[in-house]
Amino acid sequence: MRNIRLTLAYDGTAYCGWQVQANGPSIQAAVERAIQRLTGETCPVYSAGRTDSGVHAIGQTANFLTRSEIPAANWRPALQAFLPRDIVVRAAYEAPLDFHSTYWAVRKRYRYILHNGRALFPCLRNYADHIRKRLDVAAMHAAAQVLLGTHDFRSFETNWPNKVTSVRTVMESGVVRCDGWPAWSCPQRLDAPPPSAETGEFICFDIVADGFLYNMVRTIMGTLVNVGRGTWTPADVERILKSQSRSLAGSTAPACGLYLVSVDYRGEGDAA
Amino acid sequence: MRNIRLTLAYDGTAYCGWQVQANGPSIQAAVERAIQRLTGETCPVYSAGRTDSGVHAIGQTANFLTRSEIPAANWRPALQAFLPRDIVVRAAYEAPLDFHSTYWAVRKRYRYILHNGRALFPCLRNYADHIRKRLDVAAMHAAAQVLLGTHDFRSFETNWPNKVTSVRTVMESGVVRCDGWPAWSCPQRLDAPPPSAETGEFICFDIVADGFLYNMVRTIMGTLVNVGRGTWTPADVERILKSQSRSLAGSTAPACGLYLVSVDYRGEGDAA
Repeated sequence: MRNIRLTLAYDGTAYCGWQVQANGPSIQAAVERAIQRLTGETCPVYSAGRTDSGVHAIGQTANFLTRSEIPAANWRPALQAFLPRDIVVRAAYEAPLDFHSTYWAVRKRYRYILHNGRALFPCLRNYADHIRKRLDVAAMHAAAQVLLGTHDFRSFETNWPNKVTSVRTVMESGVVRCDGWPAWSCPQRLDAPPPSAETGEFICFDIVADGFLYNMVRTIMGTLVNVGRGTWTPADVERILKSQSRSLAGSTAPACGLYLVSVDYRGEGDAA
Repeated sequence: MRNIRLTLAYDGTAYCGWQVQANGPSIQAAVERAIQRLTGETCPVYSAGRTDSGVHAIGQTANFLTRSEIPAANWRPALQAFLPRDIVVRAAYEAPLDFHSTYWAVRKRYRYILHNGRALFPCLRNYADHIRKRLDVAAMHAAAQVLLGTHDFRSFETNWPNKVTSVRTVMESGVVRCDGWPAWSCPQRLDAPPPSAETGEFICFDIVADGFLYNMVRTIMGTLVNVGRGTWTPADVERILKSQSRSLAGSTAPACGLYLVSVDYRGEGDAA
């Protein structure tokens, strides 16, 4: 038996999300079907996170157990041949037999992209939220700092309690304004906002944590948008976090702006 | 009779292009159908340029003659209600009766977007060309300067001769590297390349001319890419331009990276 690990990027627009569901096509089903067509085997595929309908991935991690003897170097092109253009296998290699995409993950990085310009651009309709009113990015960034550290994030979870605990640790959190739709390869921009910070039409919220609750990034984004509009202050976000009450937080931002950027595993660096 | 002028943005992915064709849905047909459903009239809609299949628009200009008495301010939302999400009416207003989108245009601005990064991002597959190998943007920009001024551009035209003349005047032409997918609202970046010029994963070619030949921007882009790869120099591009031979130029770059950004009309500023 071998354990094959994949790095996947996908456009979530046409899917009901990662997980196999009755109401539409899923990424998981598409990958399992590709493996089945390639090897003849029916293998369950595990992932680092079950992205929702319309949510995209740049560096989702997945793995599956197989008896196939296909050489490690051939998996990527071979699987790609059975996948549609909106799912890309960025890497495939053999992992230790006990590696598990879900349970071995120690950090995940998400990015939320907002188009904050007057005009509505149809090419972006599935790839960024759109808010016309100019948002105060400095205030949003200040509010994002409130999330850093270990907290009970149930204020930002849909349908709590879903899990044993809603305590998570946020290692990075920041908001910047960018000239263009931000490329996912630039996570370092949080530390050094670019000079376009004043003029850009895009807003990018990056967050890294040891785990995320259901809808956590989207609810935080909806809350930060209220700060950007001037409705709330960073102190309000602190109050909402401490209240442990979902009803006080902002609305859930649309799925289309959310990207799972990368997943880190024990003993590994940032895989972005 | 009234003449209604529209500014349209559209995602060209699902269309066979602007012009009504037998082999698939067109933007023109979608707009004419919306007018028909709104007013009951069958009006031909004219545009500044007939974008090809898969080519996008940020600021296409169109117009049509109507007997409808719908107030000017209501046209935009009323037409939008009958259009799909991938076609957006950015503005609608009443124009002089003799205004014609095609014949009154004095300048058009196109942008070609290239993702020049190692990873293939499925969310961009319909919105930018993708070239893995790092391109030399400074050389591409130098080559783009060769195009400035009035020249016979038949080297960069598919199926010449299509028109009375293939002489056009290029007023702006430049290539920059950008951190993110460049927003269309930043045409001024040509004069002041951003500090990300060395690190960005996106390449943006902007060109403004009094008119364009069939496939002209895409053929120029294919040629500039060969300069970026180091195959050709700016002097080669000058030689190709002067040769007036399409067979010497580069291949036609894919439609998905091309955006019609704006159209200027007599007595008006840049409408981007």
